[in-house]
Amino acid sequence: MKNIEALLLQRGVTKRDIIDCVYFLQSQYFENLDINIIEHYVDSVLNKREVQQAIATGIAIDMAAEQRSFGSEELQNIILNDEGLFGVDEVLAYGICNLYGSIALTNFGYIDKIKPGIIGILNDDHEHQCNTFLDDIVGAVAAAAASKLAHDRENIK
Amino acid sequence: MKNIEALLLQRGVTKRDIIDCVYFLQSQYFENLDINIIEHYVDSVLNKREVQQAIATGIAIDMAAEQRSFGSEELQNIILNDEGLFGVDEVLAYGICNLYGSIALTNFGYIDKIKPGIIGILNDDHEHQCNTFLDDIVGAVAAAAASKLAHDRENIK
Amino acid sequence: MKNIEALLLQRGVTKRDIIDCVYFLQSQYFENLDINIIEHYVDSVLNKREVQQAIATGIAIDMAAEQRSFGSEELQNIILNDEGLFGVDEVLAYGICNLYGSIALTNFGYIDKIKPGIIGILNDDHEHQCNTFLDDIVGAVAAAAASKLAHDRENIK
Amino acid sequence: MKNIEALLLQRGVTKRDIIDCVYFLQSQYFENLDINIIEHYVDSVLNKREVQQAIATGIAIDMAAEQRSFGSEELQNIILNDEGLFGVDEVLAYGICNLYGSIALTNFGYIDKIKPGIIGILNDDHEHQCNTFLDDIVGAVAAAAASKLAHDRENIK
Repeated sequence: MKNIEALLLQRGVTKRDIIDCVYFLQSQYFENLDINIIEHYVDSVLNKREVQQAIATGIAIDMAAEQRSFGSEELQNIILNDEGLFGVDEVLAYGICNLYGSIALTNFGYIDKIKPGIIGILNDDHEHQCNTFLDDIVGAVAAAAASKLAHDRENIK
Repeated sequence: MKNIEALLLQRGVTKRDIIDCVYFLQSQYFENLDINIIEHYVDSVLNKREVQQAIATGIAIDMAAEQRSFGSEELQNIILNDEGLFGVDEVLAYGICNLYGSIALTNFGYIDKIKPGIIGILNDDHEHQCNTFLDDIVGAVAAAAASKLAHDRENIK
Repeated sequence: MKNIEALLLQRGVTKRDIIDCVYFLQSQYFENLDINIIEHYVDSVLNKREVQQAIATGIAIDMAAEQRSFGSEELQNIILNDEGLFGVDEVLAYGICNLYGSIALTNFGYIDKIKPGIIGILNDDHEHQCNTFLDDIVGAVAAAAASKLAHDRENIK
Repeated sequence: MKNIEALLLQRGVTKRDIIDCVYFLQSQYFENLDINIIEHYVDSVLNKREVQQAIATGIAIDMAAEQRSFGSEELQNIILNDEGLFGVDEVLAYGICNLYGSIALTNFGYIDKIKPGIIGILNDDHEHQCNTFLDDIVGAVAAAAASKLAHDRENIK
């Protein structure tokens, strides 16, 4: 899938935003956690086919809801308001996390509650665009990269 | 969510179609498996909020792809062609199955390969409409109802 | 399965401990969250067959590891030390959470990092018994009950 | 984790048995599917840490149940009889499949119903040893390897 980074950027998410989320999740476990090392892991996650499909699908849902061309009035309102009991966004996010094991799922649950950095910004912004799927997707990519980093920790330190 | 049965019907799936899939999965385990009993279980699955959200979202994706208003050209083509390595449709289906435990997941994997009844019809029909998400959703609802039926088996026999 | 509460108690976990974890997860969303209401949800989770199987299996692993009668020396040491990259305990916990939808998974990830109440106590106690599976199981049961409570919120308030 | 192949062999499963299951799942998609190529994918799955942990844990449960040193009488009987509604064995198997995406889950559901080769042999053999977890684990490893193979198909053909 082409240009997944460009698609994220178009929706206001830089790779550095994701790197910062990984740093938030992992810095306590390293003495000096290098941004370049994190970038390597974020790239690796973003290059995986199933991750790209989930990102592209989630963003396409957000955009179709914005344009009021996604399903019934009721579904559109649920998505545009990011209703607390709507769970399909998390289901898509888990589709990413599952690929990186149980640590990724735990990290996602944590980051989804704390909402550090870009995740909080996306979650609070209902004016410019619909971020219902995007904030969970960014959290899932960061959680996945953090999990991969944790699994390689011994070799990096 | 209103009228989830009406939405399925609009896309060519009757409740009876789903009941037949459950019958396919479970009839060997019962001496006389009554259609009315299966209907009770299908209703129960279709009434669950998270199931309804997944059904509505999946069908909305199929329809947006048909109308060429869903994400990039590349993503639309992947969905319209139901490419074998596109897995987001199954991710959504697992979001339904997971709620009904491990037997539901196994049943889904089986029905997704065998494609009995309506699932095969949906899977083969690329002319009238896009069924990429719908066939998996129908399989997941049937697998979930079959699992719930299996768990209650002792009491029913 | 008989006496799942008695089994938890035998390992140092009271139903009240689990209720307190649910309160930790949900109190912010209610004006007055009644302990008796939470108890109803915890009971409901503890009465589910697949939940009971996961609890009984997880505790049996902890106990077999204590008694040095569980697999190889290497596996026993991994379990007894609750090594950070051992993930089977979380896999079992997700088997519980998945039954209660995506909110349960998010709650689990959060509670597993914060470790409130009994979860922190179990996690810190390596002297008296092995709690590698138990702390995740208790977190999963609490997260599941909290999710069920959240889904019923509108009716309770 | 050391000697995961030796552990499988000790329980009656050769790498060739697993390769045959992958062949069963994938041969229809290739003109000439080479055993050596499949072996490469099976090795790759068997070398993954979380897979090894799941295999070792599942086999340890089977063996502890055989030796009547695993939890309550009730739990032991459930495991020794591989009761149809016991689902923890599948939960562990899904812990493996999830790492390889949605195709792995579908393949597992299918192979778990059809029970080709070694999986059927393990499932039928209740005399020599307890295979309740082992048959699902073997199915999961084969399904995971088949999924990885499917994802690389274009490059191999």
